[in-house]
Amino acid sequence: MIRNPVAPEFGRERLVFFSDAVFAIAITLLALDVRVPDIAGQATDRSVADAIASVAPRIFAYALSFAVVGLFWLAHWRRYLLIERVDEPLVLLNIILLGFVALIPFPTALLGEHGDVPIAVVVYVLILSATGVMGTVTWLYANRRGLIDRDLSRYEVRLGALRGLAVPVVMLASLALLPIASTSLVETSWLAIFPVQALIRRWVRHLDEAPPAA
Amino acid sequence: MIRNPVAPEFGRERLVFFSDAVFAIAITLLALDVRVPDIAGQATDRSVADAIASVAPRIFAYALSFAVVGLFWLAHWRRYLLIERVDEPLVLLNIILLGFVALIPFPTALLGEHGDVPIAVVVYVLILSATGVMGTVTWLYANRRGLIDRDLSRYEVRLGALRGLAVPVVMLASLALLPIASTSLVETSWLAIFPVQALIRRWVRHLDEAPPAA
Amino acid sequence: MIRNPVAPEFGRERLVFFSDAVFAIAITLLALDVRVPDIAGQATDRSVADAIASVAPRIFAYALSFAVVGLFWLAHWRRYLLIERVDEPLVLLNIILLGFVALIPFPTALLGEHGDVPIAVVVYVLILSATGVMGTVTWLYANRRGLIDRDLSRYEVRLGALRGLAVPVVMLASLALLPIASTSLVETSWLAIFPVQALIRRWVRHLDEAPPAA
Amino acid sequence: MIRNPVAPEFGRERLVFFSDAVFAIAITLLALDVRVPDIAGQATDRSVADAIASVAPRIFAYALSFAVVGLFWLAHWRRYLLIERVDEPLVLLNIILLGFVALIPFPTALLGEHGDVPIAVVVYVLILSATGVMGTVTWLYANRRGLIDRDLSRYEVRLGALRGLAVPVVMLASLALLPIASTSLVETSWLAIFPVQALIRRWVRHLDEAPPAA
Repeated sequence: MIRNPVAPEFGRERLVFFSDAVFAIAITLLALDVRVPDIAGQATDRSVADAIASVAPRIFAYALSFAVVGLFWLAHWRRYLLIERVDEPLVLLNIILLGFVALIPFPTALLGEHGDVPIAVVVYVLILSATGVMGTVTWLYANRRGLIDRDLSRYEVRLGALRGLAVPVVMLASLALLPIASTSLVETSWLAIFPVQALIRRWVRHLDEAPPAA
Repeated sequence: MIRNPVAPEFGRERLVFFSDAVFAIAITLLALDVRVPDIAGQATDRSVADAIASVAPRIFAYALSFAVVGLFWLAHWRRYLLIERVDEPLVLLNIILLGFVALIPFPTALLGEHGDVPIAVVVYVLILSATGVMGTVTWLYANRRGLIDRDLSRYEVRLGALRGLAVPVVMLASLALLPIASTSLVETSWLAIFPVQALIRRWVRHLDEAPPAA
Repeated sequence: MIRNPVAPEFGRERLVFFSDAVFAIAITLLALDVRVPDIAGQATDRSVADAIASVAPRIFAYALSFAVVGLFWLAHWRRYLLIERVDEPLVLLNIILLGFVALIPFPTALLGEHGDVPIAVVVYVLILSATGVMGTVTWLYANRRGLIDRDLSRYEVRLGALRGLAVPVVMLASLALLPIASTSLVETSWLAIFPVQALIRRWVRHLDEAPPAA
Repeated sequence: MIRNPVAPEFGRERLVFFSDAVFAIAITLLALDVRVPDIAGQATDRSVADAIASVAPRIFAYALSFAVVGLFWLAHWRRYLLIERVDEPLVLLNIILLGFVALIPFPTALLGEHGDVPIAVVVYVLILSATGVMGTVTWLYANRRGLIDRDLSRYEVRLGALRGLAVPVVMLASLALLPIASTSLVETSWLAIFPVQALIRRWVRHLDEAPPAA
């Protein structure tokens, strides 16, 4: 599309560093909601301790979102070790992904304030799942357009696509628990993201080894 | 101007990464206004749902500004694939451009809160149009000073100049609708940015092919 | 100091990009105070226009600080085109410089809210002048330790040291006007930064040419 | 783990720049709490001076945290001059480290508001100490997995591990003073971080020279 790029490598690098900056800012802004409320009257050890205790749900929401966004960033990091070139549609898809990443502080604050209310959990799950799905979409696009390393095994390609789906799969499935379980049980069930990610990896390797060989 | 630069390439790279950081921060701060209002009394599924619904105009303003700033970044990304060297005046022009980019969260918040008030729409249009125009100004300067690749076709040079104008052209033209149409119709008309950008590209290609050949 | 650095170049690059990130964030946060106040009752074109007009002093403070921090960044950009290597004390001095840069949103907000009160002007001047002086200190250190290009002319070395002093010199001198002039006159006098910077450059070139030749 | 990375060097670089961005944002957000309180009635030189004086504890908290986070960043900078390659577990450990770094504005605000209340001091110490310890953990992991330069002397390896511990050691020890001394004395005792860091360096060098030679 661009006939005479000064440095084709430069375009990919810039996409990646721009993404890193958005991830870094979003992940750091998550902590902005972890704030002690104003204390009326003279502050004492007791009243400050109470104020700190009252931010516990926000610290939980912060830690949770930081872990999930950290996983998304790790997936992005891994994918762009393998993507050799970028084109404009990939840049656009990546901008949409970043649009969801930058929005994550919103559902995080919602969960920190109203984590016991089902609708807050639903909004949190939808936005984080959409982010995970967009990551997979960018990878599938890059694969279809031949932007990733041609020597890559099918195992790596599949893993790149499926790995990021652990978050959406576990989170969306957990919504089925919402009518019958407490919101804190639903949130606890998200810990399943880690074993599910390991399972996906094992299953993808199995797929790869089932036929004669790749 | 600088007689013994350690690494001339380094100056361009730094300009670009500094710009990326400002773009990334501005684009992420856009989401800071997407916040649920405080809920008086006990939060229920209903009151939280209402609170979430009440931020819908801010989510709209966020998505709109994210898309526009994303387009501006894409234009910047494209231009610096072709700009080979930078000089101090270009750095200064770029800083002015970034000054407008960093300001965009302000009209975005204004639109999110008062999107139904014409003056808010006017301020939004003026600031975003100025940003688009400054992008074109940096490109024209770089072209005049021979900072871009000399082998570049006239098509690429013209496209670099005109492409970023889709936002100002559509937005400024939409102001003509303001006295006769609702603000939401005016905002909807901004979707024309996408077809106008395609038209500009086709028209520039046509200009390029009209003479014997470039 | 570090006996086996994997990549000596990498240390300088990282110092520079870390600085760029801090500059970019500080410069973008400057705009966070440009916000319309809440409007009581139904928002109308008139009340929104009034609200926008009321942020004019903050837009002025934003533009002013953006220009000054932009100049500081430009000076930093220029210096590290010429600094070849970094050592730990230079990194520490640079961190102190960034500590002032990151603080600049504070005096900017102060000026935006109370720009007509002399003490606000004094605090603004002191913090921005300290930032400018720290920039010169890093350059002098780098020069003394032989971290900059040895082939550099005395003209370049002197210019690197003196150039960044235009902001402190003009701003500190303007404080002498404070007892006898309005704060807005004092603030207007800061426009002298631009001609003073040009004068410094001419004067440094003159110094360089006075002896037989460099 | 990744069989065909396009550029192995790229993975390390990205880890480092992502870290720089998080450090830069956290360090810049520290200053966000340095804000003048609203002034009731007409602002005068006196009332603005009082308002500025009232933010002194926050400026102290800002300067303190900026210095500590600056030291953490310097330690990170130093370590990645020596770490040659990264693997996924190191990236994950680094994300956990960044999770603490991004949280630091919270205890800083707490200390700025309630620095005279012991529990605020305890929370501050715990979060900053955990950050320092995580830095050492990443270094020990990298050393065990052979990710650092093999030619590195034992002195450098030990220094990389122990250097970052000056902050946790001094801060945790200072908690012993809390029942018997004022909080401001405890906070003043943190200045011991600087001589302790020098002592650690000397002690590590001594360890290195005690045996015949390394």
